[in-house]
Amino acid sequence: MMYDAMIIGGGPAGLAAAIYFARQKLQFIVIADVIGGQAAWSSDVENYLGFHLIDGMHLVERFREHLNDYKDSFTLKETQRATELTAIDGGFRLKTEKGDTFDARMALIATGEKHRELGAPGEKAFYGRGVTYCATCDAPMYAGKDTIVVGGGNSAMEAALLLEKYAKSVTIVLVNDALKGDEMYKQRILASKMIRVIPNAKTTKIFGDTFVNGVEYELPDGKRQILDVQGVFIEIGLVPASDFVSIVKKDKWNEILVNERNETSVPGIWAAGDVTNITEKQIAVAVGEGSKAALQMIKWLQKQPDRK
Amino acid sequence: MMYDAMIIGGGPAGLAAAIYFARQKLQFIVIADVIGGQAAWSSDVENYLGFHLIDGMHLVERFREHLNDYKDSFTLKETQRATELTAIDGGFRLKTEKGDTFDARMALIATGEKHRELGAPGEKAFYGRGVTYCATCDAPMYAGKDTIVVGGGNSAMEAALLLEKYAKSVTIVLVNDALKGDEMYKQRILASKMIRVIPNAKTTKIFGDTFVNGVEYELPDGKRQILDVQGVFIEIGLVPASDFVSIVKKDKWNEILVNERNETSVPGIWAAGDVTNITEKQIAVAVGEGSKAALQMIKWLQKQPDRK
Repeated sequence: MMYDAMIIGGGPAGLAAAIYFARQKLQFIVIADVIGGQAAWSSDVENYLGFHLIDGMHLVERFREHLNDYKDSFTLKETQRATELTAIDGGFRLKTEKGDTFDARMALIATGEKHRELGAPGEKAFYGRGVTYCATCDAPMYAGKDTIVVGGGNSAMEAALLLEKYAKSVTIVLVNDALKGDEMYKQRILASKMIRVIPNAKTTKIFGDTFVNGVEYELPDGKRQILDVQGVFIEIGLVPASDFVSIVKKDKWNEILVNERNETSVPGIWAAGDVTNITEKQIAVAVGEGSKAALQMIKWLQKQPDRK
Repeated sequence: MMYDAMIIGGGPAGLAAAIYFARQKLQFIVIADVIGGQAAWSSDVENYLGFHLIDGMHLVERFREHLNDYKDSFTLKETQRATELTAIDGGFRLKTEKGDTFDARMALIATGEKHRELGAPGEKAFYGRGVTYCATCDAPMYAGKDTIVVGGGNSAMEAALLLEKYAKSVTIVLVNDALKGDEMYKQRILASKMIRVIPNAKTTKIFGDTFVNGVEYELPDGKRQILDVQGVFIEIGLVPASDFVSIVKKDKWNEILVNERNETSVPGIWAAGDVTNITEKQIAVAVGEGSKAALQMIKWLQKQPDRK
């Protein structure tokens, strides 16, 4: 069937749009990898107006509750990762990793950002078997194990400080010569007897049997070293989750270009939230952008010749 | 003293910005007429992601709770209506109706919209003594009384349907020849034995002693009629609350012009929410815009030569 609209992504921007569509009784589908998106694995969320003292998981529960008020008025496809968005006659078609296809007259891209990959051999093969991009989700599973955190910014430091509570050892391996970010984090890491920092080191390989059992890194003199670890936490930043769409214009960071009405370069496709060139990657802003995009889309649909 | 920033307005946009400023430890002041702004007198709010089944009053309580987490880190001035914003050396100065002045390096205008006034003689004199712009707030006070609603759109119809529960009689007086808005509302008004509709009628005068006791309206043939009423509910739309600022550029509707970074035409002044030329006047959007503006302002301040 051809829906009025498809929302690609289940983070704050996509869900905010879904509320608007549902209340306007559009026929629509939400295709989401993870409901809540990045918000789901945030620890404390302190700057979304109206929610104080809430963690990401509970905030996302509240989003889901809100969405449930309208659950009979739209289709929700979860754990579906978008692989390709193309133009078809009268609309757009989305293909997903599971091989499904969904068609709609309008598309809202709200896929947010995903964790940047290291690009080292073994990274993909051991993903979920020792390699992870989410310390908040997975740190407790590494109790009593030797771990490394790859990266040198705030999220790497946060991951190390969290792992400190569980792991047997934590080594931060970073390509730069020093950690960069909050002074408070740096001091806590310096003071920690559990956390070791190896600067100027490029992680070149992740290896193991069924699970990870080591990594290799390279020092500036070209020498390679091995670390015996069972957990590899990769925290080297985020990139827009926009690979699945090539028909809209993007900037050099792969962010989808939108104007103040959230229109992309292709009529009928809008984008909102962290996947776009908006500089503020924030829950509150994504909710606002998703709502704004939805209202624009509702107006656009009403103006189509075959709608009254 | 010269604050880092002043936030003018206490609605969703202003409060969202306050949360960001507080978390960044800016020295700032919030000058608000009403905390919550329009949201405070909304009945049900159903499209702010994360809150289902909440009315405006309770949503604003949640906003206030959130703000209270940071109450020691900023100054809040309530029931202060802005009267004039001017440029001073190194910043801006706001005067208020109470005669206070506040200075800050940066200003965020987030004053939202206010009810449009009718411009009829007696309207100002009897404000709060029979004349009101807020049916949600005041309808119960008119139990057993004769009332009129001036206006012909959804908000006028909502006011009439609410008054029906309390008042002795409700007359809708509208300048157009028919009610405009949701079909459902029109049908309920048509079916009501309590609500009378007088189309093509211009409300020309509001009169009384201590309190309102009547209105005069004019028909197309020039004849004037009198209605004995004790309550006058004016519901003829909203206008931006931007009269107090003349140094920034506005559009023909008196909305403050902002770009996608929420900058106004004056460096150092930002604006967000319903007072701006953004077309979506929505709580979720205002929260997003206020957050976005705050982040831009924090960046701007950090770049100033005397800040590190």
